This record gives sequence, C-alpha cells and structure tokens, in this order.
Amino acid sequence: MTVGEGLAVLVAQPGPLEESDTFERTAGGAEANVATVLPQLGVDTAWLSRIGSDGFGRYLIAHLAARGVDVSAVVTDPTRPTAVYVKERGSGSGKATDLAERASRMLYYRTGSAASAMSPADLGATAAARLLAHCDLVHFTGITTALSDSTTELTEALLALPRNGRLVSFDLNFRPALWAQRLDLAAEVLARHVRGSDVVFLGADEAAAVFGTGDPDALRAQFPEPAQLIVKNDEHTVTGFAGAERVEVPALGLEVTERIGAGDAFAGGYLAALLHGRPLGQRLRFGHLCAAAALTGTGDGAELPHPSVLERLAGLDEKGWAELHYNETVIENVVL
Amino acid sequence: MTVGEGLAVLVAQPGPLEESDTFERTAGGAEANVATVLPQLGVDTAWLSRIGSDGFGRYLIAHLAARGVDVSAVVTDPTRPTAVYVKERGSGSGKATDLAERASRMLYYRTGSAASAMSPADLGATAAARLLAHCDLVHFTGITTALSDSTTELTEALLALPRNGRLVSFDLNFRPALWAQRLDLAAEVLARHVRGSDVVFLGADEAAAVFGTGDPDALRAQFPEPAQLIVKNDEHTVTGFAGAERVEVPALGLEVTERIGAGDAFAGGYLAALLHGRPLGQRLRFGHLCAAAALTGTGDGAELPHPSVLERLAGLDEKGWAELHYNETVIENVVL
Repeated sequence: MTVGEGLAVLVAQPGPLEESDTFERTAGGAEANVATVLPQLGVDTAWLSRIGSDGFGRYLIAHLAARGVDVSAVVTDPTRPTAVYVKERGSGSGKATDLAERASRMLYYRTGSAASAMSPADLGATAAARLLAHCDLVHFTGITTALSDSTTELTEALLALPRNGRLVSFDLNFRPALWAQRLDLAAEVLARHVRGSDVVFLGADEAAAVFGTGDPDALRAQFPEPAQLIVKNDEHTVTGFAGAERVEVPALGLEVTERIGAGDAFAGGYLAALLHGRPLGQRLRFGHLCAAAALTGTGDGAELPHPSVLERLAGLDEKGWAELHYNETVIENVVL
Repeated sequence: MTVGEGLAVLVAQPGPLEESDTFERTAGGAEANVATVLPQLGVDTAWLSRIGSDGFGRYLIAHLAARGVDVSAVVTDPTRPTAVYVKERGSGSGKATDLAERASRMLYYRTGSAASAMSPADLGATAAARLLAHCDLVHFTGITTALSDSTTELTEALLALPRNGRLVSFDLNFRPALWAQRLDLAAEVLARHVRGSDVVFLGADEAAAVFGTGDPDALRAQFPEPAQLIVKNDEHTVTGFAGAERVEVPALGLEVTERIGAGDAFAGGYLAALLHGRPLGQRLRFGHLCAAAALTGTGDGAELPHPSVLERLAGLDEKGWAELHYNETVIENVVL
C-alpha cells in the first residue's frame, strides 16, 4: 500500500515553456508512481489518497486502476482540486529560459489540493483500515509529509500504528519548496521518519542537503535504526545496508531519456523484490532495473519489461551486470 | 488601464475532462481579456498585474504585448506561480461527467498565485504610479477583489485614490468560490465597490445572487451612485443608466461558439466607445458587438473585426440592428 498525492501531469513541448502551445496529459506523484510499478512485478497494491471531484481526479483513478492498483480507499474531496504539475522539457536551444536537451523541470499547482488535506482520520476510514489491517508493507515519501500540517500528522500516525508485522517504507524525497514556511522543521521531521521506518531510501544529494552528509557510511552511522537503509550515491552506484550487511551495486549503463520517476521506480523494484523474499543484492538490482526502465522511457511511471526479463537480467554474474547496457535491443534479445 | 490576474488557460478536448489526452494553451483572466480588446479599438491600454517567474507568466506578457498592451508595470514574483485554469468543453455525449455541446466549465489553480499577492503597494511602484497618473480610466472586476485580503485592500485603495478626472470602471464578476471563507463579506465589499465606481457592469444573475435582485430598475434604485450602471439582463438585452438617461439595447442574433470572455469583451467595447466620447446607446452597441465577436469565436480574448466594420454595424437604424445576425458572412459583406 502506498500513501500520497497523485497529480495530473501536463507535459510541455520541448523548449521554453512559454513557447509550448500544446500539452500532453499523463499521471505522476511519487507514491502513485511506486503503486503502478508494483503490480507489474506481481505485488497486490493499493493506493491511499484524496482527489478532487474533477476530471483530473477521475483520470488518476482510471490510470491507476487500469494498472491493477486497488483504488477502493481513495477519497473524493468535493471542495479541493486534484493537484497538477506542468513538466517543462529542455530542447537545448541555448535560449535563456530553455533547459538542456532531455532535462526537465516541474511547475507545481498543489497548494490547497485534495491530497494536502489528508489527515490521520483517513487511516481510520473503513476501506483504508481494511487495507492497512491486511497489507505487508506501507510505503510513502517525504513529499506526503511535506504537503501540510495535517499530512505530517498522517505520516506520524502511520509510524505510530501497531505494526503487526507490517513494514513501513520511506523515501526521503526532500522538496525544500514544499516545506516553505516550515523549512526549519524539515530536518527534524524527516529524521524522525527515517528513524521510525523499516526500509528507507535516501538520495545522497538530498541527504546532504537535509542531514549534512551524503556519504553512505556516515548516513548509516547517523541512522542505525531502520533495518534497511538504501543510499543512492549518484547515477552510478547504490549502497544498501540491511542489519550488518552492506552491499554496493553499480547502476546499469543506459542513455537517459528523462529522469523523472526513476527514484520511484527504484523503490518499486526494491520493494517488490523484498516482498518476494529476495536477498539484499537482488533487491538493489531490481531497483536498478526498474529505474533503468523509467530512465529510458518517457512518462513518470515506469512501464517495465516482462518480469521474466528482469529476472534474467537480475541473475547475471557480476561481470555480466557490470557490462550490461540497458536498452530496447538488450531487452528484446534476452533469452527466456 | 486594467488591474487583475492573468491566467494561462489549458483547453481540454471536447468531452469529459478525464478523457482529454492533450490540452491547448491560451490566455485568460477578466482584466487581461478586457486589456486585449481595447487596443483593437484604438485605445492605449496598460495591464497592471503580477506574474510568477515561470513560462506561463512570460507567455502572458508576450501575449498581451503582442496585442499592443503596455506591460511595463507587470511585476514578476519569484516565489509564487502564475495562475492557471483548465477549460473543460462539453461534447454533449450524455456521459455523466460530460457537458452539453459548446458548454464549458473552469477548473482553477489560482490559490496562492502571484497575482493574489497584489496589494496597495503595487499602485505606488514607479511604473504603475506613472501609468495611473496619466490614464483616463482604470478598470477591474470583482475577481481581483475576491482573490485575497491584500487584493481587496488594493481595489479599495484604487477607489480611494484622488481621481484627477480619471474614471473607475468595475465589473461585478461575482465568483462565490473565490470568496470561500469570507463569503459573508462578499455582498458588503462588492456593494462598496459598486457605489465607489463611475462605470459599473452587472450581470442580472450574479446581481440577484449577491444583491438580491436582477431587475435593472431595482438595481439602479439600490445603486444610484455610479454615473453609469449597465445591467446585462440575459442574453437578449442590456439596460444602461447614465445619469437620468435609461437606454435598453437588444443583443445581436448569433450562434454561440463559447461564452467565456463575452462579458469582458462587452466591457471592452463599452469602455472604448466611452473613451471615444460616444453616447450611451452607441456604447451599449459597441459592447454587444464585441461580445458577439467573443461569443462566435473560440478563446477567451475576443478577436474583433476591423473597427470600421464595427462602426458601420453600430450605425444601423433600430430595425437594422434588431434584424442583424452576427456571423462571418455579415462581417465580410459589410460595405465600408
């Protein structure tokens, strides 16, 4: 089960945003992205959120449901809109307001959104309580926590609930702009979420910004509490700590189409492998493979190759993994 | 000079919003719409507003500047976004969330926008103060007033400024949703704006909702203060009061393409004729003609025929006006 905001994404044409006459609509939001990855890997998944009583909310519901996500606990708020973000895409023209080719930037319209009004009460609603009682893992990110005071209360309540064997997974996703007036609170709140979760994903850059270091071992020393701590060092390697175990797995060679959603896909791959009982190294490889699918595709949600293809690639020896260049040709040529 | 928020408009394909895969970008906002009508009628016009430091803000600036509007007093706010609205369009499919054919509905993302942070201080900024000192008329609507506490202070300050012969024009544009938490204040604030302005536009429906009556004579009795009071009764007639004068002018026959922006075009046509020194009946006809251009076109801003065509049509005798059916053929066949 994932808990967080979904957004309608309006994708501009490449080039300065002011010159884009048309926009293509897709779906986004960190926890919604993770939710759409998991069913592709055979994991029963539900998404807990709030949407507005509008076409964008109905689109998100249809989008996730079509990907096999249980949306029975999503609440419609008649008074607040579904959030939207506009995705700018660079064309590398060199114009002052253009981005580099394949680079992207987001312009958010989520202030006062339906999902920002989520609160601990949402956990007690009938459909949500039923899902919580039966799920093996709850995943959310620092974005959910950052949306509003009431969503911070929601995530704190999630951490405080009796676990009954259920794991809590947390992806830092530090977004300074969302903390706005309460930026001084961010480090304290986010550290409490890291310490209170069982599986934690940290990007080295964002960890450096909020916790003062991006070094995996320093972060593990600072946060010994979570059973599993995963530090994404940069594009090239991820360090996973699980209890006393420490494994470092290099990322795959690939040509990036767009980066948005790669971190969510990584979390989805890791968590699916975790729920399937795989060892740490395999979990990190599944994370990398799903991130690779997101990085080489368009759209925020990763469309994965068949699980048996991922299975085969995750099973390569060290040398084969190190030499793997992830692209369409490789995927098509995997002998199953 | 017009004062208010401009919005990037994202126009959905006809049909339920949730089924629209692409969106076309245009420009909107009541005062921005009026600002783009006036130069087409030979009136030097400036627009006072705030935009975000983003592509939508830059687009609005370019859009208005290309239409001859002075944008030198528009302020860029680095911390707040330019507002956006999504325009849904009906296809008349009968689906539960579809609208009737040619009907439209707006989904706003303007909470916390750059323009909502406008305040009396904006009037004192160098560029704005220079424009205010020299302009003959300032126009704004009840939308500007409704955006936030600080924009209410802005419009109250506009009313309180020494006039020095400058006229203040106010279009009610009552939007209950924008008043949200302070709906009980709306009637009082809006009545003060009506009483304090020189030229006032009221739609009968919205006047009934906020002031208790949509009847032109009852409204004039309730609001004797503004020198000019224009009541748009329904689609078919407008009653104008100017001092002791009372003139009623029927609307033109036409096939509606879309209604958004028609009221703004009416105000633009009326105000241009006013600034050109025309009598009340002619002012109302120019309002109807510009509204007709908006009603028969797509987009929020009216693209007018050549002024000499409008001139000719406004000069018809009573019978000719009553029988006029406004469409492309009529406009093309006007003998200049």
